[in-house]
Amino acid sequence: MEMNQCGTSRITGVRFAVYPMTDRFVDVIKGALQETDTSKVWMETDDVTTCIRGKTVHVFDAAKAVFLHAAKTGEHVVFNGTFSIGCPGDNDADVYLAENDTPANEESLQAVYQETASHFALYPMGRDDYMQVIADACSTAEDLGVFSGGVHYASRLDGDGKDVFTALERIFTDASKEDGAHVTMTAAISANSPSKKGGGK
Amino acid sequence: MEMNQCGTSRITGVRFAVYPMTDRFVDVIKGALQETDTSKVWMETDDVTTCIRGKTVHVFDAAKAVFLHAAKTGEHVVFNGTFSIGCPGDNDADVYLAENDTPANEESLQAVYQETASHFALYPMGRDDYMQVIADACSTAEDLGVFSGGVHYASRLDGDGKDVFTALERIFTDASKEDGAHVTMTAAISANSPSKKGGGK
Repeated sequence: MEMNQCGTSRITGVRFAVYPMTDRFVDVIKGALQETDTSKVWMETDDVTTCIRGKTVHVFDAAKAVFLHAAKTGEHVVFNGTFSIGCPGDNDADVYLAENDTPANEESLQAVYQETASHFALYPMGRDDYMQVIADACSTAEDLGVFSGGVHYASRLDGDGKDVFTALERIFTDASKEDGAHVTMTAAISANSPSKKGGGK
Repeated sequence: MEMNQCGTSRITGVRFAVYPMTDRFVDVIKGALQETDTSKVWMETDDVTTCIRGKTVHVFDAAKAVFLHAAKTGEHVVFNGTFSIGCPGDNDADVYLAENDTPANEESLQAVYQETASHFALYPMGRDDYMQVIADACSTAEDLGVFSGGVHYASRLDGDGKDVFTALERIFTDASKEDGAHVTMTAAISANSPSKKGGGK
């Protein structure tokens, strides 16, 4: 019986989906994937989610690009996924690590500004002091100007999508810097919601 | 500074959203919420996600009902969320525990059959032997007839939505049965996807 396969040491991955709340959802998703440069990551989509694997910098860059290209259509679009690194159950398959550190999508995203609202949660696995790592993550988000406080089971981030992804990447990198650390992080990032910020129904 | 607030001992919670991929997403969500009996749980929706708190049985029952009532419209609808119990950072607020154990939505869901495809991942916090707990979870899903194997960072479940929720509830309950255990579990559950099962882009 196969069990969970996760991210072996220093292979970062994300399993996510982008949800466009429109009849045109197929076109929005296909368009966003076409506009994203995925040459520096391994990527596979099935009928439930998409998986990206590679160096941390490129995994965050590609995930951000898919989301922002979908969101810039103006439709209500949500990114929802889990980033992961260092799972003891992983293998070395399906990954490109022999890439330089220049994000492939940075230039094409330069002109994209997208207000977002997010909930994220950090799960440092296999260690007793994980609550401190979570507290440090919130401090990092606060330092970077996107932290909006805690909610049950998550913390809220608000701001430009690129700033939010920068904070998430920093938090994930800081939490996983120890050799062999297994860390996962969930994020739900919403753009163009008709609900009011901080309120809603 | 506030940090993550999670689920104190024996308060179960889920932070989730239901994403209808249609122009009618507001109506689908509002309709599903109206059809769901939430009298036995605490529930709050903001502009990013919805949080439900209470006894395990009622949290799973209410989340399942919101998803299935949305999915039965025939639209492509995805449930994406994180269940949680026992976070040391939680407080006792916002919860109804003084309820009996009869699921409020069981009767109204009896006639609802909905084929689904899911990815789930289990995160038992603060313990060294968490990989064994994850392996046990996969065995449970297999015993219940909904397990479809591992993918990177998750395991796949296929089957009727009610059977999948039954498996998720059992897995979550088994993993959190030790006093004070802090466990989280993510699940992305898709209904009516135009993509082919197990493939597609």
